[in-house]
Amino acid sequence: MELIDGKKIAAAIKVEIAAEVKRMMDKGARPPHLAAILVGEDPASETYVRNKSRSCKEVGFDSSTYKFPADVPEKEILDTVGFINEDPDIDGLIVQLPLPAHIDNQKVIEAIRPEKDVDGFHPVNVGRTTIGLSSYVSATPYGILELLMRSGIETSGKNCVILGRSNIVGKPMSILMMRNEEPGNSTVTVCHSKTRNLAEITSAADILIVAIGRPGFVTADMVREGAVVIDVGIHRVEAPETKSGFRLVGDVQFEEVSAKASHITPVPGGVGPMTIVSLLMNTLKACKKEIYG
Amino acid sequence: MELIDGKKIAAAIKVEIAAEVKRMMDKGARPPHLAAILVGEDPASETYVRNKSRSCKEVGFDSSTYKFPADVPEKEILDTVGFINEDPDIDGLIVQLPLPAHIDNQKVIEAIRPEKDVDGFHPVNVGRTTIGLSSYVSATPYGILELLMRSGIETSGKNCVILGRSNIVGKPMSILMMRNEEPGNSTVTVCHSKTRNLAEITSAADILIVAIGRPGFVTADMVREGAVVIDVGIHRVEAPETKSGFRLVGDVQFEEVSAKASHITPVPGGVGPMTIVSLLMNTLKACKKEIYG
Repeated sequence: MELIDGKKIAAAIKVEIAAEVKRMMDKGARPPHLAAILVGEDPASETYVRNKSRSCKEVGFDSSTYKFPADVPEKEILDTVGFINEDPDIDGLIVQLPLPAHIDNQKVIEAIRPEKDVDGFHPVNVGRTTIGLSSYVSATPYGILELLMRSGIETSGKNCVILGRSNIVGKPMSILMMRNEEPGNSTVTVCHSKTRNLAEITSAADILIVAIGRPGFVTADMVREGAVVIDVGIHRVEAPETKSGFRLVGDVQFEEVSAKASHITPVPGGVGPMTIVSLLMNTLKACKKEIYG
Repeated sequence: MELIDGKKIAAAIKVEIAAEVKRMMDKGARPPHLAAILVGEDPASETYVRNKSRSCKEVGFDSSTYKFPADVPEKEILDTVGFINEDPDIDGLIVQLPLPAHIDNQKVIEAIRPEKDVDGFHPVNVGRTTIGLSSYVSATPYGILELLMRSGIETSGKNCVILGRSNIVGKPMSILMMRNEEPGNSTVTVCHSKTRNLAEITSAADILIVAIGRPGFVTADMVREGAVVIDVGIHRVEAPETKSGFRLVGDVQFEEVSAKASHITPVPGGVGPMTIVSLLMNTLKACKKEIYG
């Protein structure tokens, strides 16, 4: 069994990005700039946005965070998006989701100019990804593609089974894995809560991508010997034996499944570290105008 | 075996649409209006656009066709699209594809306002379909959903196998069949030219949707007893025994497969008649502002 070390791969990509930023700046360009809008005081969201800022700094990007109280009027968020849309010195904009209930999430996402939508959530980017045009691929699917590619995993002609049909993982992942490109060219099956013969289907997977949001859902009997297993889940479960009193687990029973898998991502340290790196890659593309020319 | 009679279902939908148009006009509204842009003299395209106009007339829609010679400058097409975008009396616009080589097809598609893109090819509509927002679903997938629904075929929890991964059939069909809605909730597998164990996969399908573009590709040994078979293909093959010297066949060997299927679409008269009807349904939605409010 080979561990797909997301932390290590993410670090390597950051080094590549930093080198590219240096090259750009040596030629007189300004650094890429990622802006984030953060509403309210959710500790997890604050941590996430702080990590983004830190990662930006690591690779030489500028970053800025627009913070608002939880009761900010929707209009103020839309105005801020409009203002950032017009700022030629900001390449990418992300809005930390979910927003408070009185703000229409989708309306805010659609207010972002597709050219700056480095989270890839705007319908234009989703549509372009689906059609196979150049686009910002959203962070998790993009990160998984990089993990597969950089781990030398062949995907063409393989049976890829995806557990979960969410807009941010399952659906885009299925489109990307079926496309006529590398990584891709897999025969793709998408399973979900209505799937009947689940273990039978997952057992036929050469590549199993699990994003079902249930801790330890995938057990060894559901996995084929030699399969590649990508675990997107991340859950905090109680663990009295640890100092903190909890530990992080994925959607996959790591111990038993890793004994059968040829490659597997750990949790933490697998898919997780790739998401911020994907965002950095998209912001670099935005700065270089690689997607929309 | 039950034949899924697309001609009959399409006719029934047209009656429903015509009744709705009458209701709208009785209340003083103008009829829905579909415009088409046609470039060059391709006989198949001309026939198709003529059929659309005739279908519009049948249900009480207005229709108009903007015809251009094959050497029309791209700008003139874009200007025409812009003009139709602004015309409040035109609800839907389709551009007959493919356009001549000197015109950028994608550029023209993206010039159409998503609100009038009743073909559902604009990235915004593709993206909205993928995310599960209200959208214009493109004609063939929309038609297939209607065939399934109106034939009383249960899709939830069923294994749906789709042959072909095109932007206009395979990909959107896969997203629609996996969504958490009826019809949908199927476990979806998409196969294509790189798929290895094809017959094994198709043999496990409760619902088999074939859009692979190869005459008679699917044979009885690839189909499970009692499967629902939807044949999207349409090919003109030589047939010296007929008066015309040719006949139309699908991607499925109809004779042998129909002996095993529980339901099957014939070619012609299956999926084909549904595509124009889907366009009419989308134009009606456009006129009633059901998608974009």
